[in-house]
Amino acid sequence: MYFHDPHDRQSKELIPGLTIRSFWGEKMLASVVHLEPNTLLEEHSHPHEQVSMVLSGEIEFTIAGETKTVKAGELCIIPGDVPHYVKTGAGAVKILDVFSPVREDFKY
Amino acid sequence: MYFHDPHDRQSKELIPGLTIRSFWGEKMLASVVHLEPNTLLEEHSHPHEQVSMVLSGEIEFTIAGETKTVKAGELCIIPGDVPHYVKTGAGAVKILDVFSPVREDFKY
Repeated sequence: MYFHDPHDRQSKELIPGLTIRSFWGEKMLASVVHLEPNTLLEEHSHPHEQVSMVLSGEIEFTIAGETKTVKAGELCIIPGDVPHYVKTGAGAVKILDVFSPVREDFKY
Repeated sequence: MYFHDPHDRQSKELIPGLTIRSFWGEKMLASVVHLEPNTLLEEHSHPHEQVSMVLSGEIEFTIAGETKTVKAGELCIIPGDVPHYVKTGAGAVKILDVFSPVREDFKY
């Protein structure tokens, strides 16, 4: 099972306004994230390293107190255990998050 | 240095018609790949697990002999040491590849 189309995967709501569709191997878990406008994912951290690429829209990332609006095609790399949060504005946003090691709590 | 805009990163040509812009942490290396039309990246394998998401265009992936046209928004997960190759058709393609562990040969 190498190929995945997120359209064929049931989504899971993490918080109101934020759903994921996740896929995983042995070392990484990839999560296609949809965020509704005006959604805040509050500050959190996890031991997993995170690569995030914005696929559409734009979103405000705050990582270790540093805030930046990240646009489609841009990415960020969040080391393990570094606190971060995201906030959408007037538009919906789609992101690809990849975590290593696999986030067991994102398997469903 | 958490935030990365591929437009600010010099590209590296891996083979004619295929360039990468790479970014890395401790556990993963992310590579934004541009492929010109009618480009073949010949069969190869590496011990790193690979998550690939097509960002624009469509491309034929063959993984362990299984071939599929992968379109924008779709992804594949290639286990370590599994042979694979890709071939573009009439259009250019943009992909995000994420490798774990970090591909040292993609640092530049």
